[in-house]
Amino acid sequence: MRWKLTLEYDGAGFCGWQRQANGLSVQQALEEAIQKFSGESVTAQAAGRTDAGVHARGQVAHFDLAKETNADTVRDAINFHLQPHRVAALKAETVSEDFHARFNATSRSYRYQILNRRAPSALQAGQVWHVPKPLTLAPMQEAARLLIGNHDFSTFRAQNCQSSSPVKTLDALEIAMEEELITFHTSARSFLYHQVRNMVGTLMLVGNGQWTLDDFTSAFAARDRRQGGPTAPAHGLIFWSVDYKIQ
Amino acid sequence: MRWKLTLEYDGAGFCGWQRQANGLSVQQALEEAIQKFSGESVTAQAAGRTDAGVHARGQVAHFDLAKETNADTVRDAINFHLQPHRVAALKAETVSEDFHARFNATSRSYRYQILNRRAPSALQAGQVWHVPKPLTLAPMQEAARLLIGNHDFSTFRAQNCQSSSPVKTLDALEIAMEEELITFHTSARSFLYHQVRNMVGTLMLVGNGQWTLDDFTSAFAARDRRQGGPTAPAHGLIFWSVDYKIQ
Repeated sequence: MRWKLTLEYDGAGFCGWQRQANGLSVQQALEEAIQKFSGESVTAQAAGRTDAGVHARGQVAHFDLAKETNADTVRDAINFHLQPHRVAALKAETVSEDFHARFNATSRSYRYQILNRRAPSALQAGQVWHVPKPLTLAPMQEAARLLIGNHDFSTFRAQNCQSSSPVKTLDALEIAMEEELITFHTSARSFLYHQVRNMVGTLMLVGNGQWTLDDFTSAFAARDRRQGGPTAPAHGLIFWSVDYKIQ
Repeated sequence: MRWKLTLEYDGAGFCGWQRQANGLSVQQALEEAIQKFSGESVTAQAAGRTDAGVHARGQVAHFDLAKETNADTVRDAINFHLQPHRVAALKAETVSEDFHARFNATSRSYRYQILNRRAPSALQAGQVWHVPKPLTLAPMQEAARLLIGNHDFSTFRAQNCQSSSPVKTLDALEIAMEEELITFHTSARSFLYHQVRNMVGTLMLVGNGQWTLDDFTSAFAARDRRQGGPTAPAHGLIFWSVDYKIQ
């Protein structure tokens, strides 16, 4: 039986999703929890391989179990064995044998959080990027609109990106402000490596007045990472949700 | 010059607001930061002495400084010296010599957060009470309305409460649900010791169907702590804000 899991995790304690020799990954924590509950050694495939420090509210992973069991048991047993790690299985569902968390995803969405005030964060520390300099929303929103659609995103592409092409279609990039919290909500079928963090870091330069909209337009048109702004830190990023056409 | 500070803190790392022999208090962390910046040994008085584990988004404290300085410097310097503790000064203001953070407060408000789902919290762990059993909002809201106004709150009063009377006036107790997060927002001129946590713990029994509204009414009328429900854990509580008539 193939299982689909929806996962929430705090990225702080992990070297990212993917198993690595040095450091605990979310994948390892999850696979060990599954083994403790089922006695089976499985490989979990995720919709997106989040980096060290990046959080998830709706990561999706799949794995196969020979053991016959039900969804509530799978979710509760995995959560029991995941302790004390800050990873939680929100939902377990059976899916068809064809389902693949990564290859079947039709849309992924991310949320990025900036705390924009002089004082550092005490209550949200670790889940927001603290930007003390005041940011103005309107120019960032205007710049963000230029990114919507099918474009060459090389300006926001990390050097070690493994995507075959820098051309992607960005479906949404909405920026909102509530009190001192600025949130970026973006979705696409797929993203280049570090694309969200590089877009946010560059939009921040527009928001604080360091860049004009023309500067932003030129940088985007240059298709050159060296023309883009800084990479926003990992801990402000949350892998928000994944959509699938088939289950 | 008398200074008024608005403070945010994560209660997890502290033995509460008040200085104690065993363990670091928010008061001690703050007073040491003030001393490092000003060279002056001060005593900070808070609007409410939060317990170990209780958070604050809008605690207010006052202290006196001989040093002449401005509000931005006070806030930024205190924040600099508060590191790495999870306490932040959101705002510093000069107030009159008569101002007292505790005695002049005309209203205090608290927020309590319950995460109501089977899976534990990964992203909000430490700031929510995880209640796996489903809670129904309407009966809790109905029970909460009974508490509004001037009453004897002995049923929700901790044994070691130092208030001269169990009679208090509750101005608001609103319960809302957004996805799996249930929030209680309550305000009053002052509260009995553990009153908010005891009200929430007792309302929880109404929400999960263990108690009827009649059970709740009888327990409240009994004016007896032993008739009330459990004390909700400290880490779900946030000291939200304080109001003053004079500054």
